[in-house]
Amino acid sequence: MKFEIKNRDAAGRICRFTTNHGAVTTPNLMPVINPNKMLITPKEMKKLFGVEIVIANAYIINKDEKLRKKALDEGVHRLIDFDGPIMTDSGTFQSYVYGDVNIDPTEIVEFQRDIKSDVGTILDVFGKPDQTKTKAEQGIKETIKRAKQGVKIKGDMALACTIQGSIYPELREKCAKELSKIDSDFFPIGGVVPLMENQRYTDLVRCILSSKKGLDPSKPVHLFGAGHPLIFPLAVALGCDFFDSSAYAKYANDDRMIFYWGTEKLEDLTELPCSCPICTKYTVSELKKMDKKDRILEIAKHNLYVSFAEMRKIRNAIANGNLWELIERRANSNPYLFEALKELRIKGNKEFLEQFEPTSKNKALFYTGSQTIHRPIVYRCHDRLFNRYKSSFKETVVFPDGGKPYSSYYSKQIKKILEKGDVNILIDSHLGPVPLELDEMYPFAQSVFPDIADEETEEEVTKIFDKYAKNKKIICWKGNITLEEMEGVTKKGFDGDLQRISAVSDMQFGKGAGKALFNGKIRIVKSKKTDKIRNIHCNGKHILSMRASDGMFTLKMDGAKSLHKSFKYPSLRVAVNKDAVPFVKEGKSVFAKFVKDCDPELRPFDECVIVDDRDNLLAVGRCLLNRCEMLSFKVGVAVKTREKLRQ
Amino acid sequence: MKFEIKNRDAAGRICRFTTNHGAVTTPNLMPVINPNKMLITPKEMKKLFGVEIVIANAYIINKDEKLRKKALDEGVHRLIDFDGPIMTDSGTFQSYVYGDVNIDPTEIVEFQRDIKSDVGTILDVFGKPDQTKTKAEQGIKETIKRAKQGVKIKGDMALACTIQGSIYPELREKCAKELSKIDSDFFPIGGVVPLMENQRYTDLVRCILSSKKGLDPSKPVHLFGAGHPLIFPLAVALGCDFFDSSAYAKYANDDRMIFYWGTEKLEDLTELPCSCPICTKYTVSELKKMDKKDRILEIAKHNLYVSFAEMRKIRNAIANGNLWELIERRANSNPYLFEALKELRIKGNKEFLEQFEPTSKNKALFYTGSQTIHRPIVYRCHDRLFNRYKSSFKETVVFPDGGKPYSSYYSKQIKKILEKGDVNILIDSHLGPVPLELDEMYPFAQSVFPDIADEETEEEVTKIFDKYAKNKKIICWKGNITLEEMEGVTKKGFDGDLQRISAVSDMQFGKGAGKALFNGKIRIVKSKKTDKIRNIHCNGKHILSMRASDGMFTLKMDGAKSLHKSFKYPSLRVAVNKDAVPFVKEGKSVFAKFVKDCDPELRPFDECVIVDDRDNLLAVGRCLLNRCEMLSFKVGVAVKTREKLRQ
Repeated sequence: MKFEIKNRDAAGRICRFTTNHGAVTTPNLMPVINPNKMLITPKEMKKLFGVEIVIANAYIINKDEKLRKKALDEGVHRLIDFDGPIMTDSGTFQSYVYGDVNIDPTEIVEFQRDIKSDVGTILDVFGKPDQTKTKAEQGIKETIKRAKQGVKIKGDMALACTIQGSIYPELREKCAKELSKIDSDFFPIGGVVPLMENQRYTDLVRCILSSKKGLDPSKPVHLFGAGHPLIFPLAVALGCDFFDSSAYAKYANDDRMIFYWGTEKLEDLTELPCSCPICTKYTVSELKKMDKKDRILEIAKHNLYVSFAEMRKIRNAIANGNLWELIERRANSNPYLFEALKELRIKGNKEFLEQFEPTSKNKALFYTGSQTIHRPIVYRCHDRLFNRYKSSFKETVVFPDGGKPYSSYYSKQIKKILEKGDVNILIDSHLGPVPLELDEMYPFAQSVFPDIADEETEEEVTKIFDKYAKNKKIICWKGNITLEEMEGVTKKGFDGDLQRISAVSDMQFGKGAGKALFNGKIRIVKSKKTDKIRNIHCNGKHILSMRASDGMFTLKMDGAKSLHKSFKYPSLRVAVNKDAVPFVKEGKSVFAKFVKDCDPELRPFDECVIVDDRDNLLAVGRCLLNRCEMLSFKVGVAVKTREKLRQ
Repeated sequence: MKFEIKNRDAAGRICRFTTNHGAVTTPNLMPVINPNKMLITPKEMKKLFGVEIVIANAYIINKDEKLRKKALDEGVHRLIDFDGPIMTDSGTFQSYVYGDVNIDPTEIVEFQRDIKSDVGTILDVFGKPDQTKTKAEQGIKETIKRAKQGVKIKGDMALACTIQGSIYPELREKCAKELSKIDSDFFPIGGVVPLMENQRYTDLVRCILSSKKGLDPSKPVHLFGAGHPLIFPLAVALGCDFFDSSAYAKYANDDRMIFYWGTEKLEDLTELPCSCPICTKYTVSELKKMDKKDRILEIAKHNLYVSFAEMRKIRNAIANGNLWELIERRANSNPYLFEALKELRIKGNKEFLEQFEPTSKNKALFYTGSQTIHRPIVYRCHDRLFNRYKSSFKETVVFPDGGKPYSSYYSKQIKKILEKGDVNILIDSHLGPVPLELDEMYPFAQSVFPDIADEETEEEVTKIFDKYAKNKKIICWKGNITLEEMEGVTKKGFDGDLQRISAVSDMQFGKGAGKALFNGKIRIVKSKKTDKIRNIHCNGKHILSMRASDGMFTLKMDGAKSLHKSFKYPSLRVAVNKDAVPFVKEGKSVFAKFVKDCDPELRPFDECVIVDDRDNLLAVGRCLLNRCEMLSFKVGVAVKTREKLRQ
């Protein structure tokens, strides 16, 4: 089994998961296959919906003499006639539904191993939401015990060790930590079906987040029993990689159709509000009049078309960096999900999520409503503004939000103001205070808001602005460029470009980066076409390039040298162990398994300097992982090396 | 040509539009057919996407010698091989694009008539958004002149008279009023393409609303050039019935794919985020690698699948009464659309929209964010609460929002409080103040909010609550049922059921309705199963039934008699002219063309009393239309008669 990050957004990720029966891309959905009653065969599913992995219940197979024998003789892949990866479940859910199951925890793992399941599951103890903490604690104790037994006998099979702990975050986290210590390959988050059935999404978020906090980040995470697309985007953003759906068939049985915004009863529909091959083939009355058996099949297909389209939508959003937009849109269609999103902003959670948030994205940040301002990227921007940025002058002139970039939009006004004296220029933007020098930096320039947002956003931003403006001499611009308050402001020799590159450096690399980088004769090369900064040379050496897409720097080797010299270990470093040094010196990328240490402040897609274990500079590159991921993952690239040190 | 309302929500409607070549259901989308270059033939479109009506450009046909001849000889239906309704355009858009067109306004109308177009269009003068008001005024003058000429020569053809007026609401309204006076059959809203191209949705909303305010409501309205599904829900909610799409082909040509949330370039996609037959047939890389010509065709099909799915979604939302939810979800995915929605709450607009808003809906009201609280139905609730409802006692105990219905959720607390004395019980709900007696009435019980909404909602609701609570003695309930402040509250003999039916009557029928209805011996029959009020008898006569679905009354004949007696003309009345009297007396429904007058306070789905022109009571029924619609429509049902007066 191999699991490797390929791309990411929020705390979600696109990974490649490799099993004995081939590889799948995550996030992904496993349709539940009932070997007794295959509504749609796995082969058909692959053809129609692009299904890559399925899940079957080993407990049910085990309890049926005929299936049992066939599975043991020919393997589960022949049993359900599917040559791709198959996960099996153990009967835990049956124990929840029926009170108990008659199977030995060891036996069911051995059985799964023997039928050649790709991912088998331990018989964990289902922690119901209404359990007392004591009872839940007993449950996770037993679950951990069984997991420990399981890993001893799993053989060639990947073993899924389910995290339980009812609705107690501390128990979830503890269970996850314990299970991460043993040789588990795969982590389902269990016991959540009753939460989803009752739309208790806030509790669901708590369960996922606390589990993730305790987990080894290098293993796949499966939200057990989650088959409704409504919660896929949020669950993915919190780090879930797999889902399983029996809902497609169960709902179809009751004439319920799954949509990305929720579920609709067929009888309530006057038209089919969907573009899938089923909903474009039939009219609603044709579907209603159809023979029950045929209708179940067609609705099941619809349910799978919609579910897999949502999976593609999510993976596309990760690649484009707009997963938060998708999540918030979903939250706007369900008040319970809307409520659940608020859980992400509480202390402890926002800091956790910020660690995984990429520093830059392919697409602009889009406002979707009152939740947008609470995203981790906005929290980070404000945090860095307070801790990394320093303004140049005493007096500050404030402009209201306007066209972007602000320096072009307000160019005339700014010119006249700066003729009178040197002041900071600050934009009172929808994202909070934006110093003019940062106006091309992601997400300040790459964001789209309505002229007037909702009041919650305005209040939140005002709060940040007031905090920022405190102890600063603020001169508000009211369209009057004579600005009486500016009398007496002195002219100290303002250099807009230098101010810009210093400010961006500080925000991107840390306080003092500008000072470290620009300590010589600076030459700024601009694009002839756009007049925007492209390359920066210091004492004749090319130290930085500014990316037009996000207004942030690509660090060149000569810039890296300055930062390496001025910033103390471990700042900006990824340290590799000895085995990797020769490869990095050749300019090869850094694989996670060779990372020895890493600056805890580095974030996905941050620029970094690569050093050996004695802090000798080797190369410069761009992180794909954050610290905890680098130290956990055994496969995949941790840092994409861009430039090696010339020997 | 016939145009008849079948169902409705917001100011949107599902209508049946009948032409010389068959009927279509609106809202609907007309794909633009270019007879020179048919990417997909109309016949294929009918088969694949359920296309019912198409639009072709008569100007282009007229300018091409070969097409012109064929169209004149065989008709436009043979020309493009489509036997359903065809609308034609006149060249106005070409005049906008190329500065001018070389065609006579009369000639082009005659030409359309002669080629047997079902709906022909006048050569109106395109009012660009950057025009001065004087210039725009000249434009509408000329447009109106041409429309007047047009109707004289239209013959058998329905004539579309386009509303212009640039971005000046008063000119739009004026133009609409003038065009409504002449024999126009169909109203395109023109000159809006540049607004949509630049995402100027606020201006677009102003154009639509001001046009609608001036228009005869009984004719179809077409948003000319609107082919992107993003704006369909809002445009429909404001009363647009038709759209046309050349976008499906134009966008496909540039490898741009249309989605309900916006447009994506194929090159930016890593997966196809859609469930349509195209997106489930190919992977994104297959589509990217495809031969350009084939790809254009496949993307065009995708664009039409998505556009028509959105149309079905909208019609389904109208039937279910959740069109506002759909609109707000769309607005949450585009900040400019979000901004545009705010236009609906300004004075003049909200009152206009409230007139068309149904009194009750099939589905619960769902919160989608900060826009929800500004919906017309909420505005109406507050308005009626202030103007129709009167509380029974001096002191009021306030409960926070809780489970619904509140009377069950708080039953224990309420019981204990009422043992101490008689007070009003008020819920400080997410929808504003809700007197306990109204807690089963739509939308108070039929609404879903998160526990804590956004701050804008909370503030808005607090404002209303404070206004309501002013001059009332408020005793806040804080979980302490001893309530010290209640000492001294007297016991006057409280009857919860009577209070409830009186309050609901007043809210639904008007101030004093409870007093008028319950002036005798009241017997309340409750459901044995749910213990909810079902039927109300007064002096042995069945006067009202309460609907379980929305907690509102169905008016029985004996109740209608009381209201007819106590409420002065025209309150609650729909007056029919002499011709209709015999039919209504037989219990037949009231057709719009027979309505002589109507209470301006009646709203769609309100209960009403049907009278003759001397105010003699004939029957009781439920309105499908509001006053201005009843007085305009010439076809279709205005009031569904439920019960006739027994002679």
